[in-house]
Amino acid sequence: MASVRIREAEEGDCGHILRLIRELAEYEKLSDQVKISEEALRADGFGENPSYRCLVAEVFSAPGEPQGPRMVGYGLYYFTYSTWKGRNVYLEDIYVTPEYRGQGIGSKIIQKVAQVALDQGCSQFRLAVLDWNHRAMALYKALGAQDMTETEGWHAFRFEGEAMRKLAGK
Amino acid sequence: MASVRIREAEEGDCGHILRLIRELAEYEKLSDQVKISEEALRADGFGENPSYRCLVAEVFSAPGEPQGPRMVGYGLYYFTYSTWKGRNVYLEDIYVTPEYRGQGIGSKIIQKVAQVALDQGCSQFRLAVLDWNHRAMALYKALGAQDMTETEGWHAFRFEGEAMRKLAGK
Repeated sequence: MASVRIREAEEGDCGHILRLIRELAEYEKLSDQVKISEEALRADGFGENPSYRCLVAEVFSAPGEPQGPRMVGYGLYYFTYSTWKGRNVYLEDIYVTPEYRGQGIGSKIIQKVAQVALDQGCSQFRLAVLDWNHRAMALYKALGAQDMTETEGWHAFRFEGEAMRKLAGK
Repeated sequence: MASVRIREAEEGDCGHILRLIRELAEYEKLSDQVKISEEALRADGFGENPSYRCLVAEVFSAPGEPQGPRMVGYGLYYFTYSTWKGRNVYLEDIYVTPEYRGQGIGSKIIQKVAQVALDQGCSQFRLAVLDWNHRAMALYKALGAQDMTETEGWHAFRFEGEAMRKLAGK
């Protein structure tokens, strides 16, 4: 049986992280929206004042198998701010590659995010999920999350592209 | 006619901002959730590496009226990160006190956020709204926003309190 380790990402992981970002966007049926590059991920996450932090899940082969560790999942998060509760964590992406699902790797990433959030004095962490992704919704609920769209009626709005430039008068 | 100015908040504004944060939470029927203090707002927004930024809307009296400027609205935002598009802005709160609504103050705050986002190289900004707040939803759509919960099915999830501590094993 292979073993799994969750660790903080390093700059050299960005190529693998980008591969998984693309896989996740394909799974979400929104892959045409991925415009990020490996260079941008390196600069934005590993300079001064990083814009995000990332956890990666690595699988180690069983003894006797020649392969080195393989990156099979990631959780990318950043700090946000609630005017009700102060500093919080937002888990922007969480992904585990299909052949490694059902082994608790996603739960381990979420657990680690909860630990980071508490260590940093945050009282909550948030994430967003697509309504057809029943498996993810069921997992988050089983781990103790509340669906705020269902219980309080929150809708996510986005300004972008030409509409945003027009709004800004630019 | 009174005139309106939108400006960046200063540390000395935090008492007024907290008053408006409480008004907004009452309007959202969720005022029991406000746990923040003026001291926390000062420390979190005006130290090194601030956790948020804030715009405030001030009304200046007409000539001959004795009152000084009055803070009647705010927009509190921070920088987030999209693995599709890079750095973004999230508008956590936007609020205009009831007697000053319908004068375009909310639109001016949103316009300014769009300008900040573009100036900082962000390609989008996001915000969340409660589904019964038809007036706000209509305004955001009129200004060019897309309802991502409606069009793509995004639901907001939250881990907090005892559930989060249990998850983290703490």
